[in-house]
Amino acid sequence: MSVTAPRIPAQPPVFHVYDTTLRDGAQQEGLRLSVSDKLQIATLLDELGVDYIEGGWPGANPNDTAFFAALADGAATFKHATLTAFGATRRVGLRAADDPLTAALRESHAPVVCLVAKSHDQHVERALRTTLAENLAMITDTVTHLRAEGQRVFVDCEHFFDGFRANRDYALEVVRTAAEAGAEAVVLCDTNGGMLPPWIGEIVAEAATLGAPLGIHCHNDTGCAVANTVAAVDAGAIHVQGTVNGYGERTGNADLISVVANLELKYGWHLLPTGALREATRVAHAIAEVTNMPASGRAPYVGLSSFAHKAGLHASAIKVDPNLYQHIDPHLVGNDMRMLVSDMAGRANIQLKGEELGFDLSDRDLAARITDQVKAAEAAGYTYESADASFELLLRRELDQLPSYFTAESWRVLTQQAADGEMDTEATVRLTARGESTRVVGEGNGPVNALDMALRRALHETYAVVEKFELIDYRVRILDQGHGTDATVRVLIETTDGLRAWTTVGVGENIIEASWEALTEAYVYGLIHAGVSPEPVGV
Amino acid sequence: MSVTAPRIPAQPPVFHVYDTTLRDGAQQEGLRLSVSDKLQIATLLDELGVDYIEGGWPGANPNDTAFFAALADGAATFKHATLTAFGATRRVGLRAADDPLTAALRESHAPVVCLVAKSHDQHVERALRTTLAENLAMITDTVTHLRAEGQRVFVDCEHFFDGFRANRDYALEVVRTAAEAGAEAVVLCDTNGGMLPPWIGEIVAEAATLGAPLGIHCHNDTGCAVANTVAAVDAGAIHVQGTVNGYGERTGNADLISVVANLELKYGWHLLPTGALREATRVAHAIAEVTNMPASGRAPYVGLSSFAHKAGLHASAIKVDPNLYQHIDPHLVGNDMRMLVSDMAGRANIQLKGEELGFDLSDRDLAARITDQVKAAEAAGYTYESADASFELLLRRELDQLPSYFTAESWRVLTQQAADGEMDTEATVRLTARGESTRVVGEGNGPVNALDMALRRALHETYAVVEKFELIDYRVRILDQGHGTDATVRVLIETTDGLRAWTTVGVGENIIEASWEALTEAYVYGLIHAGVSPEPVGV
Repeated sequence: MSVTAPRIPAQPPVFHVYDTTLRDGAQQEGLRLSVSDKLQIATLLDELGVDYIEGGWPGANPNDTAFFAALADGAATFKHATLTAFGATRRVGLRAADDPLTAALRESHAPVVCLVAKSHDQHVERALRTTLAENLAMITDTVTHLRAEGQRVFVDCEHFFDGFRANRDYALEVVRTAAEAGAEAVVLCDTNGGMLPPWIGEIVAEAATLGAPLGIHCHNDTGCAVANTVAAVDAGAIHVQGTVNGYGERTGNADLISVVANLELKYGWHLLPTGALREATRVAHAIAEVTNMPASGRAPYVGLSSFAHKAGLHASAIKVDPNLYQHIDPHLVGNDMRMLVSDMAGRANIQLKGEELGFDLSDRDLAARITDQVKAAEAAGYTYESADASFELLLRRELDQLPSYFTAESWRVLTQQAADGEMDTEATVRLTARGESTRVVGEGNGPVNALDMALRRALHETYAVVEKFELIDYRVRILDQGHGTDATVRVLIETTDGLRAWTTVGVGENIIEASWEALTEAYVYGLIHAGVSPEPVGV
Repeated sequence: MSVTAPRIPAQPPVFHVYDTTLRDGAQQEGLRLSVSDKLQIATLLDELGVDYIEGGWPGANPNDTAFFAALADGAATFKHATLTAFGATRRVGLRAADDPLTAALRESHAPVVCLVAKSHDQHVERALRTTLAENLAMITDTVTHLRAEGQRVFVDCEHFFDGFRANRDYALEVVRTAAEAGAEAVVLCDTNGGMLPPWIGEIVAEAATLGAPLGIHCHNDTGCAVANTVAAVDAGAIHVQGTVNGYGERTGNADLISVVANLELKYGWHLLPTGALREATRVAHAIAEVTNMPASGRAPYVGLSSFAHKAGLHASAIKVDPNLYQHIDPHLVGNDMRMLVSDMAGRANIQLKGEELGFDLSDRDLAARITDQVKAAEAAGYTYESADASFELLLRRELDQLPSYFTAESWRVLTQQAADGEMDTEATVRLTARGESTRVVGEGNGPVNALDMALRRALHETYAVVEKFELIDYRVRILDQGHGTDATVRVLIETTDGLRAWTTVGVGENIIEASWEALTEAYVYGLIHAGVSPEPVGV
């Protein structure tokens, strides 16, 4: 039978999970975080259970100075994580005790400071424009000073791997210097991101002979950031740096959740507090909400699509045993298996999806009819993968279980900008509900908002429950991008009644028409699930 | 000085770059390709210079059958690549010569067929529900049959790594069987994507002792697909499979461009035709246009942000030497270094950007003023990173070099749906240009289209050149997602005059107001670059 087991390294006694989403992650194109955003993200990172949260560069970045001050004032408290301030070694020719930026690090009141130091001789001479010896003095001075003032210190060796290639002895001297000055972790940084895993492994193994506690900080420029990080751990690193959702400059930093999930689920290590890994998907998405940079659907472990099965072949096998097509149980990271409803889906996917929603689609002809409808709709631009509520309405329509709550006779939206620049948007809706006709007008800060107000006003006399419905998310996607304003538009609307949330889809050439479709479906779905009858009361 | 060189393996005499964007890539959530899409993508893949293009599964997927038929009819011809048809080993208990799906592979007329075979004993017994011996016979029979009929054959060993762990001897027996039947490459597939690079390396090294030509096919479920692929190559694989932009089921396949760029630029290998790697960025983005799945801005090598520098620290160093912060010269993959205009930018970024656009911002006060304006605008939701034209207008405004072509007094858009469902959208614009006032109405298939028509009509009597302007791309982004229809909306509009294209940005709570802003800026920019004077003719 010859079962073979994978080779798994033993967990070191001390290990640091170090998050730099708020500092290095913030250097991603398009990402901008307010102090309030940072506080929210920091709280989420603490819920994830990371050991260190690098909050920013106080003194260099005014926003970060404010963030650290807010934390010092108690704006948030961490249950598990330790706050870290990022900074640099003292300026050339100045004493650390006299350097205002170093002072700012002390005044941040962060228990830990992570200092970036040059470790590549070229950078010392051409970017800093000083001597190799002075650079070492800067490290010793700053680390010693901050430790004397009561802070713990880590040191990031910038451009370490390129520096090692260019001048191995100097790079190692930097590591030795930092460790001797008292740095609790000396982090080897692949700042340009150009390394491959075997090279990382060899260089880290050499640096490990110095006996200092080593860390690793990788970027994804070769597509190997996570693998490079794990390779460094294999070679002896006891401190890993990364960001949630792999945010970061250029191609981003190593995705910290991928790294930690790999070490916990593949090596069997215990790094996060018990049960914390199950928070990973929720935290990753919650942080994406705050940053307003949607996480990739394909992200390992936490992506919406990461355990989504499309191919009919896979779906049939999964009915036999989910483990036949999944490398781990998605619940371990708080994710879920999803059967995708798509034109590649066979009856198997549709039946499983229908079951998921509480409908019996075992009748083969019924399932085939619905499959055909789904394919036709998706060809027109609809997507049911993200719009379960619209899919349910489609099923109900086919099963003749769709109540008719109202008929909209007509609607219109007028948006105007006056000479003084003032905007005005109004929507008028005419509809009939439970036999009563009504014509109402609503205003809003935009066309969809105005339609939502009008529709709600038109319905609430007949169906009071619509007062609870709130449109909480609105997404627009221009399909066949590149066709200018002739393109098909797909709108997804997420609505909540305070207890649950549901998503509906609308498609059209006209963005407002598409929005109207998603909006009306949202109300119908909400009314169905509120248990409201379309029949007039007393009849 | 101690310069150390990286360890680099020698390029094998035969090596296959095998693309499966059109087959495995198409299994990505949200991706749907028509025959026409496939033809376009195949042509682009051929321009990239891959050796094999796996076009789909003819016989199992009607769309793919049509695609192969179209190619057989000459719908496209490849200069370099060889077309491959994907399929499976014959059905249990049937002869390959009698299996209709096998016949479909023959009838595809693809020079090469890639057959997926089970190599994990559990899958043979539970998913296929047959014996281990029959599975081997299926492989031998199908490979032998297709070769006898004149096609070359590769074999994909599905779930190979998990299968090797569960039953090493059987997994290796499958490899041996495929090779002995004449498969020119036996591809080891990490179908569930759960492997890490060192494990891949060990297992491939063992399989390599059989002497068969091995391939590798990885998925990104641990975030290590590219690294796993390179690890397999290090261990002896001579055939790599992947997809452009990492498309694929769940977390996607190994990104083929990342793999090839790593082997060419880090190992110095020559895999693609001379000069083809420089097409990588163009091809990746062109394929993303066809699939309508925008490539990640952070994609290694080809992403829009991959060589974009934001941190002021990096920008100052880059002015010294770009190689200080880049692992390769972006031009090698057809990409470019970009200086990002953002609130993290210092004067250095703004000055470099201004220079890029042809403006002299060396005056420190001027540069500081502009930097402040950019930060304020970005705080309000504007982004200049993707909207160079709007950034130029901002510069011109500050430098008092912004011509005033027209003043819009007011505008309005009316969108309505009648009782019969018919949509009507009309926009009215009142403006003054070169002293002449005009009021025009335009109609369109949506509000922005209608405004575009009205604006063009209002301007074209005065400025004939606007007839050439065409709105070719329109992107909407809801900022602070999760605030329903109260959220801020950012609109990016790309316009062309047939020769060049430019992008402008508009922001507001009202999507139509934001669109109007981006639209009017697009026209102003276009008029400036057409060299039109705002002064009345003859004055």
